Amino acid sequence: MEIVSICRVAHFNAAHRLYVDSFSEEKNFETFGKCSNPFFHGHNYELIVRVKGPVDPTTGFVMSISELKDIIEEDIEDYLDHKNLNLEVPEFKTIVPTAENIAIVIWNRLRRRIKPSLKLKVTLYETPRNFVEYKG
Amino acid sequence: MEIVSICRVAHFNAAHRLYVDSFSEEKNFETFGKCSNPFFHGHNYELIVRVKGPVDPTTGFVMSISELKDIIEEDIEDYLDHKNLNLEVPEFKTIVPTAENIAIVIWNRLRRRIKPSLKLKVTLYETPRNFVEYKG
Amino acid sequence: MEIVSICRVAHFNAAHRLYVDSFSEEKNFETFGKCSNPFFHGHNYELIVRVKGPVDPTTGFVMSISELKDIIEEDIEDYLDHKNLNLEVPEFKTIVPTAENIAIVIWNRLRRRIKPSLKLKVTLYETPRNFVEYKG
Amino acid sequence: MEIVSICRVAHFNAAHRLYVDSFSEEKNFETFGKCSNPFFHGHNYELIVRVKGPVDPTTGFVMSISELKDIIEEDIEDYLDHKNLNLEVPEFKTIVPTAENIAIVIWNRLRRRIKPSLKLKVTLYETPRNFVEYKG
Amino acid sequence: MEIVSICRVAHFNAAHRLYVDSFSEEKNFETFGKCSNPFFHGHNYELIVRVKGPVDPTTGFVMSISELKDIIEEDIEDYLDHKNLNLEVPEFKTIVPTAENIAIVIWNRLRRRIKPSLKLKVTLYETPRNFVEYKG
Amino acid sequence: MEIVSICRVAHFNAAHRLYVDSFSEEKNFETFGKCSNPFFHGHNYELIVRVKGPVDPTTGFVMSISELKDIIEEDIEDYLDHKNLNLEVPEFKTIVPTAENIAIVIWNRLRRRIKPSLKLKVTLYETPRNFVEYKG
Repeated sequence: MEIVSICRVAHFNAAHRLYVDSFSEEKNFETFGKCSNPFFHGHNYELIVRVKGPVDPTTGFVMSISELKDIIEEDIEDYLDHKNLNLEVPEFKTIVPTAENIAIVIWNRLRRRIKPSLKLKVTLYETPRNFVEYKG
Repeated sequence: MEIVSICRVAHFNAAHRLYVDSFSEEKNFETFGKCSNPFFHGHNYELIVRVKGPVDPTTGFVMSISELKDIIEEDIEDYLDHKNLNLEVPEFKTIVPTAENIAIVIWNRLRRRIKPSLKLKVTLYETPRNFVEYKG
Repeated sequence: MEIVSICRVAHFNAAHRLYVDSFSEEKNFETFGKCSNPFFHGHNYELIVRVKGPVDPTTGFVMSISELKDIIEEDIEDYLDHKNLNLEVPEFKTIVPTAENIAIVIWNRLRRRIKPSLKLKVTLYETPRNFVEYKG
Repeated sequence: MEIVSICRVAHFNAAHRLYVDSFSEEKNFETFGKCSNPFFHGHNYELIVRVKGPVDPTTGFVMSISELKDIIEEDIEDYLDHKNLNLEVPEFKTIVPTAENIAIVIWNRLRRRIKPSLKLKVTLYETPRNFVEYKG
Repeated sequence: MEIVSICRVAHFNAAHRLYVDSFSEEKNFETFGKCSNPFFHGHNYELIVRVKGPVDPTTGFVMSISELKDIIEEDIEDYLDHKNLNLEVPEFKTIVPTAENIAIVIWNRLRRRIKPSLKLKVTLYETPRNFVEYKG
Repeated sequence: MEIVSICRVAHFNAAHRLYVDSFSEEKNFETFGKCSNPFFHGHNYELIVRVKGPVDPTTGFVMSISELKDIIEEDIEDYLDHKNLNLEVPEFKTIVPTAENIAIVIWNRLRRRIKPSLKLKVTLYETPRNFVEYKG
C-alpha cells in the first residue's frame, strides 16, 4: 500500500514571555533578549500537522482531513488560541514556552488522538521567519 | 559527490468530486461531506516536485531545472489542467481523486520520465491549508 | 472621525465553466479557451472584503471584524463553497461565471448586509496570478 | 513629473487585549469576544507603509527606501516590537488597541517624519486574514 | 455597466545597479548604498498589472485575461527577463533603473497595447519587502 | 531528550550567470539557456537554515535563534548580499553558481559556525518556483 503524508495548516494567536525562574534578571535577558519582557508579547502561530500512513484503497484517504481538522481545533486551537501561554496553559507552568516546547506540547496532545499506526510530525511557525519541527 | 534535491513548483486547476460507487449515498456523504457534491467542485492545485541526486561537478546541476519544468508541463499540467478529474482522466475511473491519489498518479507519471538513479518526491496542495506528500 | 478600511480574507472552492449559450462552439473556445471545457474545471477562490467607514471612538471598531466574518460565511462561503457555479448558483443561470461576474455577485450579496453608510469593496483571486476588484 | 507610491513592509510582535473600562465585563465580552481575555494574547503584526509623490528625475527615487526603512525601524518597530500595547505604549492608555487604532497611531507617528509634500498610507495585518488600511 | 479591475501577476529576473553618471563615487554610494555596486546585483521582480473598465455584458470580461497575459509576456517578460537592465535595456541608458523608473517604463510599454478606454496601473515588487505602484 | 529542528529564514539579492569556461558558446547556451547571458541577471534568494538537535531542558532552546540569525547575517548575508556571485565571491571562481552550488557553499560556511553535535540543512529558493535542499 502507498504511504502518504496528509498535512493540515492551522492557526492560533497567543501571548507569552520567555524566562527561567532560577535565572537572574540579567541571565534571563542575556538568554532571551526582549522575549523576556515581563509584560508579555505575542504571535500569530501557524501550525502544520503531518500524519503519515497507508492510503485506504477504497476511500483514497490516509485519514479524513476533515476529522484531522476537527482534532486540531478541539485539542490545539481551542486550547491555545487567544491565551497567555505562561499564565493560562498548565504545561507551561514548569517549562518555558519557546517554539520548541510549544511544538512538543502540541505533538504530545495530538499523539493521543491520532491512531498509533500513523506517524505524526508538527511544524510550528512563531513568525514567518522563525519555525520549528518535531516528530516525536 | 554532494547529494542535493532540486525542486520545481507548478500549478493546475481542476474539478473533481469524491465518492465511491459501492457506497450508499449516505455513506458517501458521511465519508466525504460536501466534497461528494454530484455537480463537482474544484481547486487550484499547487504541485512541488523534488528530484534528488548527485551534483554534476562540471555543470553544477542535479538535472536541468528547465528540463524538469518541461517534463512537468508535458506530463502533468497538460494532462490535468482545466480538466474534470473524474470524467476526463483515465486513472480516476477506478480510484477516488483524493489529494492522496492524485499525488500518487502524478508521482507514477513523473517516475517514468526521471532518470532511475534520481529520487523523486511530490507535494500536492489541494488548498493552501490541505496538502499531501508522496515519495513512492 | 478617522476613516479606516477593515478587511477580511475568506476562501471557497468551486467548479465552473465559461461559455455563452448564443455563441457557437468555435466562438466559445476562441473566447474562453480551455476554460470552456464542458466537463468543468475549478478553483480555490480567495476573497478579500473591505469595509470602509469611521472608527467608533469608544470601541475602536469600524465594525466588528467577527460580525463581518460571520456575514461572509453565511452569505458567501455557505452559498458558493464546494458548488458548481453554473449548475447550482441561480445568479449564473443567465450570466457567465467569470471572476468579474462572481465578484459583482458577491458584492451585491454583501451590500444588503453591510450598513449603507459603510463603503464596500471586494477583491477576488481566481488563481494566485489572476484576480479582480470591484467596488460597486 | 511622474507620481509613484513606494512601499515598505515591516513587522513587529506584540501582546494586547481589547476592552473598554466603562463597559461591564459582559459588554466587553459581547463586543470583543476572546480578544478581551484579561491575560492578553498577541500577534505578529505586518505593516505596509506607502509614501506617494513625484519621482526625482536624477535619482529616480520618490524618497530613499533605505531612509524609509530606518524611519519605520526607529519610530514603529523599536516602539512597538515585543511590547504589551495596553501596558507599555502611552497612546493605548486611553484608546483600545484595535487594529484600526494601532494603524492610526502608526500613521500619526510616521506623518511627523515624512516630508509633508508626500502622501502617506498604512496597511496593518493583525493576522493573515484580518487587516486594516488608513491614509489620514 | 459595472466597472471592474482585472489583475495579472507576472515575474522576471534581472541584474541592475543604481548610480548616476554625474555624481561622484562618494555621492553615488551615499545615495544608493550597496545598490551602487559596480559589479551589479539582481532581483526576482514580481509585477502586478491592473486593467480597469466596464464588464462586457455578454462575455463577462473587462478584457481577456489570457490576452493580457500574452501582452505582458511579449512586451515585458521577453523584454526584461534575464537581462542586465543597465547594459541591455535602452530606456535605462539615460535613467536610473530604480523600482520607480522600472515601473514607469513598464507602464509606458503596456499603455500602447491596452485599449485607451481602459485604465492601467502597475505594481512592481523589487523584493518581498520593497515595492512601488504607478498609474500614469 | 526531545530532538527538534529550529529554522530561520533569511534573504539576499545577487547577480550571477551560469557558464562553464571549457564549454563552447553553443554548449553553454544549450546547457544554461538565457541564464548564460554574459551581462548577468539576478535573483532575490530566500534561504532557510535548519539546525537539529536536543532541546535544552532549562532554556527550552536547541540553540538561540537570535544567535543563529546573527551567524547567518555575518557569514551568509554580509558575504553574498548585493554581490555579483561570479566576479566577487571566491568560491565561484572555479564552480558555476547554480542554486545547487550556492546551497553547498552556504552549508559549508555555516557548518564551521554551528556546533558539530547539531545537524544542519539548508533550503535555497532561487525564485519562488525553483529551489534546492542540501544537508551535507
